[in-house]
Amino acid sequence: MNKRDNAVVVAMLKANAGIVEPALKKYLSEDDAHLKVLLDAERYSTFAGGKRIRPALVLEFCRLFGGDEKAALPYACAIELVHTYSLIHDDLPCMDNDALRRGKPTCHVAFGEAVALLAGDALLTRAFEIAAQNRPPDRAAEAVAELARAAGSFGMIGGQVLDLSGETSTLDFETLLRMYRLKTGALIGAAAELGCIAAGLDKNDARRRAAAAYAENIGLVFQIIDDLLDVTGSSELLGKACRKDAARGKTTIMTYYTPEQAKQFAAGLTEAAVASISGYPGSETLCALAYYLLERES
Amino acid sequence: MNKRDNAVVVAMLKANAGIVEPALKKYLSEDDAHLKVLLDAERYSTFAGGKRIRPALVLEFCRLFGGDEKAALPYACAIELVHTYSLIHDDLPCMDNDALRRGKPTCHVAFGEAVALLAGDALLTRAFEIAAQNRPPDRAAEAVAELARAAGSFGMIGGQVLDLSGETSTLDFETLLRMYRLKTGALIGAAAELGCIAAGLDKNDARRRAAAAYAENIGLVFQIIDDLLDVTGSSELLGKACRKDAARGKTTIMTYYTPEQAKQFAAGLTEAAVASISGYPGSETLCALAYYLLERES
Repeated sequence: MNKRDNAVVVAMLKANAGIVEPALKKYLSEDDAHLKVLLDAERYSTFAGGKRIRPALVLEFCRLFGGDEKAALPYACAIELVHTYSLIHDDLPCMDNDALRRGKPTCHVAFGEAVALLAGDALLTRAFEIAAQNRPPDRAAEAVAELARAAGSFGMIGGQVLDLSGETSTLDFETLLRMYRLKTGALIGAAAELGCIAAGLDKNDARRRAAAAYAENIGLVFQIIDDLLDVTGSSELLGKACRKDAARGKTTIMTYYTPEQAKQFAAGLTEAAVASISGYPGSETLCALAYYLLERES
Repeated sequence: MNKRDNAVVVAMLKANAGIVEPALKKYLSEDDAHLKVLLDAERYSTFAGGKRIRPALVLEFCRLFGGDEKAALPYACAIELVHTYSLIHDDLPCMDNDALRRGKPTCHVAFGEAVALLAGDALLTRAFEIAAQNRPPDRAAEAVAELARAAGSFGMIGGQVLDLSGETSTLDFETLLRMYRLKTGALIGAAAELGCIAAGLDKNDARRRAAAAYAENIGLVFQIIDDLLDVTGSSELLGKACRKDAARGKTTIMTYYTPEQAKQFAAGLTEAAVASISGYPGSETLCALAYYLLERES
């Protein structure tokens, strides 16, 4: 297999999405006439056509290290719900005020601000419920704690705060990278960790540390490419508005680098990601995923 | 002891707050120059002077059923953080748009809407992290699942949605009671359940069912008295604006009952609450708490 085989990555993402989506549908299937607008909003945003990269990482790392994918599936769903909640809240008028996401009206445009706020809250809450109900319970408790740490003040939410402060003042380069690590890297890191937890690996297992290093690097790459595409990409391909960062005077990698330098920087991080896991037999697809995320155009 | 001894209740709440507040301070103590505004907002709302009724219930039920209060303390803190997050989000402009809470500016007035949104998200997330890290892990996982269920779409958040729909259409009496049960009763019920979980009681233990019945009833009473005080109380005593419900045309117990009838209805629920636990030796203070919540004026 070519190490940059996009077809393999696309097939892998599709196969994992084929496992995750029915499970998500089941988790969000309960109906209630009085709560219809809330439940519809939760489903609308959860099934808005994401690539399901985070849940794929959970399942792939679980398999890579010999775990049963059934043990990883609830964590994969939980991570995707946390990701979905973060998008809903991030799009709200008091945050990024985005009207379009994946080519569709954002949750608050479709359902109103109050319902979008509550749907985000509900998906975050449901994520922890799903993770906590997984078996065995000691691993479930560890997974909840890990997911909460990654999503919390010193993880994704902290990253959002840094991102906001990068709109009113210029973040120095180190702080910018920290913002990327927290805002995007933390949850991607948690995906790798939860896959390892499902496979029964302890915190100090070298395989788990390798997975975390891979994920931290591809998380950084993911956000760098996001900000690069905001400058060089097209709204049509991305399914969302472009050139937003410059319009807001926001600090991004483009504040410091030319597009070519940014891409080169991301390529170095991608090599580091690949190096950390390529020694494990079966890691080829995950390595190819790293290159795929580097080269993506949407 | 007089069954309506308010002094005993006040002393009990104060003693429990004296245990819970230092623990909350410790959980929210981490500092970070880049995240100062977020962490300050989390602490501002958490230490805004609540009565700490929910954490008191966790600790009291744990003690009542022979548990070690140390095992209950993380759950007590987690419940209070979930309660605090719900107040922050509930006060946001897209929800109730309240400027005053417990006599102080609400979080979004003090820190801006984006930070208030994220601080709420962060406290909810931290709550699950704290609960998940408690020991033993199997009980921690059960506690997280119970807390998430009570806080989620078919608990507190569902109650908020019903509450919102009660502003644009009149809820029938049954739906109104369901709204009360979800919006307020669910989290108060979870407080009782988490105390029982900390004491090692199984889901089907009769003591746990008694605690849940007590909590469901005092939760209903709590919300009924809240809505009664909105009509009959004073802003000065309550530390928040009054007469809001009528101004918004919101369905409350006052849509169906006179103040006297509402009070009588709440008194019946209080007797039911007391009856469900009064057979357990040591339950006197919890019984007195039920009367205290019925008679409160703020």
